This record gives sequence, structure tokens and C-alpha cells, in this order.
Amino acid sequence: MGLVVQKYGGSSVADAEGIKRVAKRIVDAKKNGNQVVVVVSAMGDTTDELIDLAEQVSPIPAGREFDMLLTAGERISMALLAMAIKNLGHEAQSFTGSQAGVITDSVHNKARIIDVTPGRIRTALDEGNIAIVAGFQGVSQDKKDITTLGRGGSDTTAVALAAALDAEVCEIYTDVDGVFTADPRVVKKARKIDWISFEDMLELAASGSKVLLHRCVEYARRYNIPIHVRSSFSGLRGTWVSNEPQGDQQVEHAIISGVAHDVSEAKITVVGVPDKPGEAAAIFRTIANAEINIDMVVQNVSAASTGLTDISFTLPKAEGRKAIDALERNRGTIGFDSLRYDDQIAKISLVGAGMKTNPGVTAGFFEALSDAGVNIELISTSEIRISVVTRADDVIEAVRAVHTAFGLDSDSDEAVVYGGTGR
Amino acid sequence: MGLVVQKYGGSSVADAEGIKRVAKRIVDAKKNGNQVVVVVSAMGDTTDELIDLAEQVSPIPAGREFDMLLTAGERISMALLAMAIKNLGHEAQSFTGSQAGVITDSVHNKARIIDVTPGRIRTALDEGNIAIVAGFQGVSQDKKDITTLGRGGSDTTAVALAAALDAEVCEIYTDVDGVFTADPRVVKKARKIDWISFEDMLELAASGSKVLLHRCVEYARRYNIPIHVRSSFSGLRGTWVSNEPQGDQQVEHAIISGVAHDVSEAKITVVGVPDKPGEAAAIFRTIANAEINIDMVVQNVSAASTGLTDISFTLPKAEGRKAIDALERNRGTIGFDSLRYDDQIAKISLVGAGMKTNPGVTAGFFEALSDAGVNIELISTSEIRISVVTRADDVIEAVRAVHTAFGLDSDSDEAVVYGGTGR
Repeated sequence: MGLVVQKYGGSSVADAEGIKRVAKRIVDAKKNGNQVVVVVSAMGDTTDELIDLAEQVSPIPAGREFDMLLTAGERISMALLAMAIKNLGHEAQSFTGSQAGVITDSVHNKARIIDVTPGRIRTALDEGNIAIVAGFQGVSQDKKDITTLGRGGSDTTAVALAAALDAEVCEIYTDVDGVFTADPRVVKKARKIDWISFEDMLELAASGSKVLLHRCVEYARRYNIPIHVRSSFSGLRGTWVSNEPQGDQQVEHAIISGVAHDVSEAKITVVGVPDKPGEAAAIFRTIANAEINIDMVVQNVSAASTGLTDISFTLPKAEGRKAIDALERNRGTIGFDSLRYDDQIAKISLVGAGMKTNPGVTAGFFEALSDAGVNIELISTSEIRISVVTRADDVIEAVRAVHTAFGLDSDSDEAVVYGGTGR
Repeated sequence: MGLVVQKYGGSSVADAEGIKRVAKRIVDAKKNGNQVVVVVSAMGDTTDELIDLAEQVSPIPAGREFDMLLTAGERISMALLAMAIKNLGHEAQSFTGSQAGVITDSVHNKARIIDVTPGRIRTALDEGNIAIVAGFQGVSQDKKDITTLGRGGSDTTAVALAAALDAEVCEIYTDVDGVFTADPRVVKKARKIDWISFEDMLELAASGSKVLLHRCVEYARRYNIPIHVRSSFSGLRGTWVSNEPQGDQQVEHAIISGVAHDVSEAKITVVGVPDKPGEAAAIFRTIANAEINIDMVVQNVSAASTGLTDISFTLPKAEGRKAIDALERNRGTIGFDSLRYDDQIAKISLVGAGMKTNPGVTAGFFEALSDAGVNIELISTSEIRISVVTRADDVIEAVRAVHTAFGLDSDSDEAVVYGGTGR
């Protein structure tokens, strides 16, 4: 008998009908001889409604109380799901993050899991129960306060529980059929990926793919927990994410896993920086002190005549204002002529472990973009990824051209349901 | 510096505006130099909405999961209230029943408090915080499961915390101005009571007065915690409930505290019972085994010619069907001719410690009813209460007549807000 962790997002349990549908699926997994642990998000728009209420009583809600408020959402969905399962004649017990032993640090609204002690879950399973656990939440180790894990937190809860319980698989149920070779809203001929390595999935997540969050994949890789991303609305097999393909998991595209794009970033160019040691360090220390994460960095070749150079970097649009302010405040110590801010950019990334041993990939990528008339502004590469920054207007054409050039297009248009996946 | 426990019902925190209004009142109490602990119910209709959802997924919701679901309501209101207080520039922390140390037995949906260990509340107060506690909920001692205290549970939470923290007073904020000499919806000239003893309040609560629940008053009497029932919508002084009046608390009506009525009961008459030892015991053992609480009991004088008698008793209407079924099933062993069921009755009670030393009260009560043309069907008395059962149709006239006869009418019609008080 295997142990399976299943995670259902908010769109899967948006109403009573959704909860009953999910309950049937859970019971099926139990009937197949598995021990089943279910991680569930808040129903549909519950979280947004709670945030709305908070803003009505206080413009800047406090971290501790805000977490206490938001965790009411999962409390509701998990209790209802347990009731629905019992109504189908199976035993179920629901557990808050705290009861499930999800121990975190004390950083409210974006806590990190530091330990999982699922003693009560083990007991519930041993007694024949299906265990339902509130996603997205935990309890702080030092103060015993309720915390939340931030965006995508429920996926992380599921993987962390799967690791602590030594589960065979962590199934992430969502409203899409799996991970695709490109965003199906942009590329109609995008194919569902049957199997993908943790490494490639991490790069896709970092490059703008939204199906799984980077943090969750990283956790799964560290503990070697296979993830199966699949739809809660169909019975179809989804995408397996693991170290090595197992059984009949197909690895069709050995060279390239997929094309990701991201229009959430902006570009800042620091113009006229003296080309001497310590300048770049001064700029990025300033950014780091403002607690801003940057992505790509490019330094132009210095113009010999002036001894000045330009440094460009990308960062989340939401952090743009803060970064500009921080740089302006430190203009005297850093030393630069001016700042340019550009939020009309897109990042397009090609991901695949196969490129390590296929030197033609980079060239093919640039050729495809060139043939499509797309201009490249920045380039950044890792061992298994190439990313470029282009104009935001070019993103759809660029993604489609690259997808076709690397033979990722499926033979037929697939019908795909796509939408937000809750948290 | 005193310690005050305040409890706010669902109608007081029905929306963001209500929460902000209550927050101001709490901050005022803190500014007056008190340490303040606040017990809060779920917002307005939240609990009903959650019950609705539960019924949609399962016709008979399970106790443990149902409690988990319902407690989400207080989690929301307490977090919002803490945020609203912080927004006014004061420190506040919210605590679930479990965090506040409300330890109960394991009877889900109607758990009893068996201990209160408010260590975290003490710490929060010592650090200068206002402590906000979820009413209505606790955690079971043996299984560490979330429990709820049943109807009126938040009042009991407040009194229990007041006792454990040795508070000066437990203020119960509601949507009426206090305890009245009769239900102001029935008797326009009903007067707000300035002070009432625990004993009289217990009898009023047992006789149909809904402002405070019997369980809560009993708890307060056991630990000698003065209760101040007052409106969260006005700044008026309400009704003090305690052992002895203090300071300027007025005791205007030494003889009679008030008139209560109750139309929630039904009457069962067991007809043709052999008048021999053990018969009544057999009937009431049957009822007790069905876990039904009965109220008044009357046995008629036996008719010498037949050796048969009738036994009547009252019980909650909701239990009527179950009682009839239980008696019918045991007809053979008990031995009776027939059963009569009557749910068109009302109970009218006169309560006041003064009647112990005023022998004319009973006579005056019956005379008032007689003058109003109201027929009495059953009579039951305690040391400080007389109750009669009449036709339900007569209840308004009967209550008004008795209220006037005992000099309880106020000189002027008072304007009174009256409604449900949540739980």
C-alpha cells in the first residue's frame, strides 16, 4: 500500500459541487489501496474576500493578524472536504497546518517551512482515515503563532508533507492538464509534457512558467519526491516531475523541454558608470540593501574614449519604483550619469538539459528569433537554459517561432482549459 | 489598574463599520486604565452561511469537522478586530480558543469547558496588548481537537476567561440595553433592571429570558464574576448581575425581578396510568433514556373509581416527536391508555427572591391572570419563582397583566432596540 499526497487548488474546490467532485476523486485513490493525505487551498475567491475585509478595517494590516485571518479560508475548505468524504462512507479528519506539524519561521505572510512533524497525520492514517490538511499555513517555532507561506504556499505544504511522510508521489491537482511545452494560451500547438526533470522544471518555473512554483520544485528535488501535475477536472495523466523517468513515462524531447516567457519584469539601465573595480558591486549592494531580487545582468563593453560603461539588469516590475529610488539616493557614492527605466520588455527562455551536449541550440534559438524579426536586447544563459529580453510587443511571435523551430509543436491543436490556479 | 473582559456578539461586529465601532469602544476601555480582554463572536450571518455550506456537502455533518468549520467564523472576526485596534494606534493580539487555553471535553458541537489556562493571554496583557479571543470554541483535553461550546458559547467563554484571569467584571455587549423586567417586544412598559442577583437571573434564564444563557450565569455565580450586560450601540449603563449590589446599583423591585415567558415548549399528557408505585418512574426513565430534558411535571389526583391517573409534563417542542416515539415503544412495560401532545402552550414565570418572605405573591399572580381571563393548565413553583402553563394565544395578555399587577411598569414607554444576539 502506497502513501499519496494530493493537493487541490482553490479553483478545484470553488463551491459545494467542486468539493463533492474532489471528494469522489480522493475516495477513488483510497479505494485503489493507497493511504491518502490531501492538502487543500481556500475555496475560490475566499482569500480575496478576506483581504477585502482586512483593507476595510485597516489600510496596512498587521502580519500576525493578517495570517490569522487568511488561514480561516483553508479551515473552511478542509472541514467541508472532510465532511463530503465522510458522506461517501469513508473516514476523514481535517488538520490545520499547526495540527499537521508544519513548523515555520516567524516571517508573517511569507514564512518558510523549517520542519514538518506529522505525528497526528500518521496516527490518522494508521487508524484508516483520509487526512485533510490546510495548505498555505503553519505555526511559528518560537512564538507558536499562525503563519502563512505566501504565494503558492499550498503546493509547498503538499511537497513538504510528502517528504516528511515519505510519500510515493505528490499529486498537484490544478485546472490545467499538466506542464506544457509553452503557455497554451499563447501557443495553440503547445504539447503537454509527459515527464520532465526537476532541473528543467526549476528553470521553467524561474523563467515564467506558472504551473508550479520554483520553491515547491526545489523542495521536491531536495527530498526526491516525484510530483504529478494534473487536472482535477479530467481523469487524464498529467506531467511527472522527478529525477528520472519511471515506467512508461515518455521523454519525447530529449533536447528541449519547453519555451517559457515572462512579461512581469522591467529593465533598469544605469548609464555612464565609471569602468573601474567596485562600481558594479556598489550598484548591486544598493539594490540588495533595498531587498530587491534582480534577474538578468549585462554590462556593456566600455567605450575606451570615455572610460564609462552602462550596466543593465532586470527585476520584477513591482519593485521598479523602489529600485530607482534606492539608486537615486546613492547616486553620489555610486557615481553614474542617469537611469533608464523600461517596463515594456519580455523575457523568452528555452529550457532543456539536452542543450548541454548540443552546441547548435543557442544558434538555432537566435536564428529563429531573427527569422521572426524579433530584436534581442539582453542575453543570459545557464547550462540548461538560454534567456533573451525582447520588446514586450514581440513576445507572442517570438515564443511561437522558437516553439516551432525546436520541433515542439504538436500535430493537432489540443483543447486546453487554462486559468488561475489559486495558491 | 483593573482587568476587564468584554464580549461582543455577532450583531455588534456584523460588518467592517461595526468592527471599527467596537474597536473604538475597546480602546476607550484601555485608555481608562484597564487591561482589556475581548471575546468576540463570528460576524453577523457567517455561522449560518457556514452551516449552509456544510449542508450542501453532507446532510449530517460530522461533529469534529463541523466544529472545525464553524470556528473559522471567530477566526475571521477576531483577526479583523485586532487589525482595527492596531489601526487606532494600540497593540492587540488575537487568540483562538485553543491558544487562549480554553480546554474542553470532547463532546463536539456542545463541549463543556473543563479548564482555562490563559498563559498566553496573561503574557499578551503584561506586554501591553489588548487580547482578542475567539468565543464559542476550545480544544479538547484528550485529543487536542477543536471543539465548540454550543448556543451562547461566546458568553460562557467570556465568563470563563474572566474567572481564570480574576477579572473585575465581565461585560457582555449585545444589541439590547440590558435585562428587562419583561420582554420589551411584548411589554412596551418593561423597565431595564439596574441590578439583579445571580439567583434571580438564573431563574429568568431558565424561564425563557434570552439575554443571558443559564450556563453562562451559572458559571459566573460559581466564580463570583459580576456580569454587566449592556448595549454596544449606546453608551448607557446596562444591567449588573452579581451576588450583591455595589455602589450606586439600584435595587428598585425588591420583591419581583421580572416576568419571563417561553413559547418553545410542548406538553405531553400520559393518560390512564395505573396509580401504583413505580409508574411515574417508568415514564421518566423512558424519557431520560432518550436523552430528553423535561421541565414541569404534574400528576393529577387519581380517580378512586378507576385507579387510573394522568401525568403531564412539558419539554422542548423540538424533542416532542422523539418523546412520543420513546413512550409508544415502551407502552407495554409502562402501561397507559393513550398519549396527548399539545404544542400550543406558553409558560409564564414570575421571578424574585422577595417572594420567599412575601406570602401574597402567589395569590396576586393567580388573581392577575384570572382578572385577565387567562386559564391556568399547570403550575410549578420554586423558592423564588412561580410558573404557569397557559394557552399560547393568551401569552401576551398574561405577561402584560402580571407585569402591571406587580408594579413593574415604567412611567414612560421606553425606546428599545431588540433583536437576536448571535451566540
